[in-house]
Amino acid sequence: MPDARNDDPAHERFMNEALRLAEASVQQGGGGPFGAVVAREGEIIGRGTNRVTPDGDPTAHAEIVAIRRACRALENFSLSGCALYASCEPCPMCLGAIYWARLDALYYAATREDAARAGFDDAFIYEEIEQLPEQRRLRMERLPAEKSQRPFEAWEAHDERVAY
Amino acid sequence: MPDARNDDPAHERFMNEALRLAEASVQQGGGGPFGAVVAREGEIIGRGTNRVTPDGDPTAHAEIVAIRRACRALENFSLSGCALYASCEPCPMCLGAIYWARLDALYYAATREDAARAGFDDAFIYEEIEQLPEQRRLRMERLPAEKSQRPFEAWEAHDERVAY
Repeated sequence: MPDARNDDPAHERFMNEALRLAEASVQQGGGGPFGAVVAREGEIIGRGTNRVTPDGDPTAHAEIVAIRRACRALENFSLSGCALYASCEPCPMCLGAIYWARLDALYYAATREDAARAGFDDAFIYEEIEQLPEQRRLRMERLPAEKSQRPFEAWEAHDERVAY
Repeated sequence: MPDARNDDPAHERFMNEALRLAEASVQQGGGGPFGAVVAREGEIIGRGTNRVTPDGDPTAHAEIVAIRRACRALENFSLSGCALYASCEPCPMCLGAIYWARLDALYYAATREDAARAGFDDAFIYEEIEQLPEQRRLRMERLPAEKSQRPFEAWEAHDERVAY
């Protein structure tokens, strides 16, 4: 379990590594200026940099990459007991991923406003998600479908389901 | 560009495929009850099912999987000109991914409340994201770091940066 005291020297070590990765991402990796690490019991178990343009994957934000690598290292979809250090406040996609990964804590350095100033849409997406669906700029619509509950019924009926 | 009229017969075809995938995910794939497809000009270019537990990846929601596959098919991190059909209203992680992927439109069948009733945290995560950081149940904290702006400065200075 990571120590969460603000004066924890591990904080500085892990955050410096996230910031180093963010800078290397631009200068060597060809990706956006973001880096992240997942730490557990004083050790880094997953590192990530932004891979959106080099990998052609809009979901390959540093935090998502670090989470996926840490899960692979632990062979577990839960990162309970771990903390994430991000060079910048995570966007809503990555914040959602942090909840799904059951991370204990999130530490970040730059803010969503810093990201917006550098040309990234994080603040815009936060505003959009907080709107009612019909007020979002994204065209989104519920299509009433007769079979919409069938997958959930199959889930309830499935004896070997693994909750997550 | 997908036709967005509600009576578009393609809507039904694509949504039925998303729902079929969601049901198959439980019965054959060992994943959660969710499916999604990315469509472009009347064709499906990416399919996804929930792979969280089979792949040990908390980010492998059906929408994320479908987006990544569609991007691979187009060799592009932008899905502008495409629409996503999801068996259920996307969680905040996936909604964020939909914005980053520049999808034109999102159609869904079941709602976040249906997902919550089946035991999934989508509604909880929406509530959390809308809170101020200090009011969230997730422990999150900004660690002031001297070098926090260095990655953005490197980005500005990098002539070959690819915006996304």
